[in-house]
Amino acid sequence: MNLKEFFAVLTLALWCALSAHASVGGDSLRSDGRALRSRGVVESLMRRNPPRLTFRPEAIDADSFKVWQGEMKQAMARLMRHPQAPSAAPRRVDSRQRAGYRIERWESYPIDSAVVPFLVLIPDGVDARHPAPAALCIPGFGQTKELLAGERAGNYSLEGEADTAAIRNTMALDFVKAGIVAVAVDNPSFGELSDDGHADFLETSRFLLECGWSYLGLTSWQDRVILDWMKTQPEMRPDRLIVSGFSLGTEPLMALGLLDDSIYAFVYNDFLCRTRERALTMDRPGDNGARPFPNSIEHLIPEFLLQFDFPDIVAALAPRPVICTEGGLDRDFRIICDAYNIAGAPDNFEWHHYPKFADPANRAPIESMPSGIDRATFFRLANVDPPSHYFKSHLILPWLASHLRD
Amino acid sequence: MNLKEFFAVLTLALWCALSAHASVGGDSLRSDGRALRSRGVVESLMRRNPPRLTFRPEAIDADSFKVWQGEMKQAMARLMRHPQAPSAAPRRVDSRQRAGYRIERWESYPIDSAVVPFLVLIPDGVDARHPAPAALCIPGFGQTKELLAGERAGNYSLEGEADTAAIRNTMALDFVKAGIVAVAVDNPSFGELSDDGHADFLETSRFLLECGWSYLGLTSWQDRVILDWMKTQPEMRPDRLIVSGFSLGTEPLMALGLLDDSIYAFVYNDFLCRTRERALTMDRPGDNGARPFPNSIEHLIPEFLLQFDFPDIVAALAPRPVICTEGGLDRDFRIICDAYNIAGAPDNFEWHHYPKFADPANRAPIESMPSGIDRATFFRLANVDPPSHYFKSHLILPWLASHLRD
Repeated sequence: MNLKEFFAVLTLALWCALSAHASVGGDSLRSDGRALRSRGVVESLMRRNPPRLTFRPEAIDADSFKVWQGEMKQAMARLMRHPQAPSAAPRRVDSRQRAGYRIERWESYPIDSAVVPFLVLIPDGVDARHPAPAALCIPGFGQTKELLAGERAGNYSLEGEADTAAIRNTMALDFVKAGIVAVAVDNPSFGELSDDGHADFLETSRFLLECGWSYLGLTSWQDRVILDWMKTQPEMRPDRLIVSGFSLGTEPLMALGLLDDSIYAFVYNDFLCRTRERALTMDRPGDNGARPFPNSIEHLIPEFLLQFDFPDIVAALAPRPVICTEGGLDRDFRIICDAYNIAGAPDNFEWHHYPKFADPANRAPIESMPSGIDRATFFRLANVDPPSHYFKSHLILPWLASHLRD
Repeated sequence: MNLKEFFAVLTLALWCALSAHASVGGDSLRSDGRALRSRGVVESLMRRNPPRLTFRPEAIDADSFKVWQGEMKQAMARLMRHPQAPSAAPRRVDSRQRAGYRIERWESYPIDSAVVPFLVLIPDGVDARHPAPAALCIPGFGQTKELLAGERAGNYSLEGEADTAAIRNTMALDFVKAGIVAVAVDNPSFGELSDDGHADFLETSRFLLECGWSYLGLTSWQDRVILDWMKTQPEMRPDRLIVSGFSLGTEPLMALGLLDDSIYAFVYNDFLCRTRERALTMDRPGDNGARPFPNSIEHLIPEFLLQFDFPDIVAALAPRPVICTEGGLDRDFRIICDAYNIAGAPDNFEWHHYPKFADPANRAPIESMPSGIDRATFFRLANVDPPSHYFKSHLILPWLASHLRD
């Protein structure tokens, strides 16, 4: 971005801020400030109920940080509503040798009615006597464990060869090639968990919400059962467990991060933003005149945003190592750095912007998103470059190597 | 329906029941009975968590009926999450004379950020010295208070004449002509509460769910504030308040019914069904191969279906007068009759089937809906005739007259 583009962004932000006041929620012409439109009413409702546990570095020291962190963990446990009952032990159902590693197919049984298969990739030379760090690899929306593992799409039997053309988002394959045991899972309703190929995440989410649960609650529970199993495997180092999430997969990463203190490090491969701010500002009417909500109900966890938002959760992972690979607002990274400073581990948080926004001169110094913007404007102001959204192994593997060195 | 058609329905039901076992949730071929598809897992989850307060007439007497009724009311209060704070008093902003009645425009202020206008139709001759019964009129999906009142669509100022062509679903107009004060409201996000004409009920619902509330919670609260105001109006008889709901409007009717013992009678103008059963059975893959969920998130109240379903709520309104005007399963009407018998008021519940299904010979004797059916089949088996879905004043007005006679 050159100077001209930079000022264009600033002008846009200013214009949005000015024009939004009149348009959002409507009715600002009413002298009593009340909204006639239900949209205005419910936006006001959300505005008047900010997250209870928003991280405020200026008001916290090392002791109160731990208290706050404890409250964050309790809140996440309440929201995720994981079953209390222990689940049956996972079972290995297949094993194949690939070039440089072994790939195994396992089944887990997170709840009575379910079977959830997953893949385990073990580097040659890693065994019970030579255990290695291990990464739980959680894919993004529409992706599958086969994609992460570099297997052919839909080849659940693992017969034949791997997908030699796979080059991007092969998170698990990249890890195993770097000497890390990789465990690849599916998100509910995708891939092998879909309904005959139909990724029915909306219907699955709806059933869960009716039952007082949520898509993230089920997802993080499925992942947690597998993570707990990883701790029992002799070829994996229980003190060097990594959770790595791509895009949608960053949500279970954050849930697990607060629920399980034994996780060693986190790979957060998405841009970081405040979901609540996004909902309240990304409400410019579309071509049909309707204002959207920024995402679908697979992201809905009732009351989540009354507790915290994503940057607060990442801050609460301090002092454990975290890498964020796809940027966001510097405002949010600053408070996470503050958290790592308070926790005494300033070197354990690393973040990278998208290449397009790597130069600070290309980033607008946003402290507060203007209202009334559309998706493209939100992405631009939040330093997001959608075409460049992929798994950033070139940043992650060196970072992991430095943190796993001991 | 002739005998041939009747057997066609029975054959269809049987075929659905047999074919559904193999298709729903998939994976029934697995010897351990576990589901691989997330859809199967979440359906199982709902099946294994039936409503806690399902009405079972065979296990209840007059005393335990009251205990159960109390639990129903408590559960509804918990689910609706109405604010504790009192709201500002409604204010009249306009008044016009029409032929035989006066129409007034009022504003209510259910929460700090909101103004919710409503219409009041007062028959000529009704005043503080001659008060009349009064009906809160709640419209269906996409309808407005103007439609109910026989006003021109979008004519919020009430200028000019009424809509003389209005003939159907003019619930409030029909009531006022019958000598009943009619109070017509909008549902959130529709009509005057829409976003510049965009009925953004999905986005409104989503904001509410994020905040731990629900579309029905807000709707029933808006309606409750107006109902409470009605009790203070000298021209309305507080001991003869009626709540009348069309279609979507039956949901706030049910909520208010359990929350407010002072309501005298209820007009339920929709077919009656078990929403949970509908979700679990109406899951036949559509033309694109995907299984739907039967409705959108304006109907989602997390954990509602863990407490009760619609017929249980109507049963819990006994002994207060209720009329259901658009049928459903005889199975459900039988248990509601049982409730009214137990409550000692067998004459206070009346129900009518759609004309197409009025003859018992035309109704399949369904005790349990077969799984794996589509919407058309569900409607056929549940005795629903969608083209005949309108406000049934010809049934309601005589019924009300007989119950208001004193």
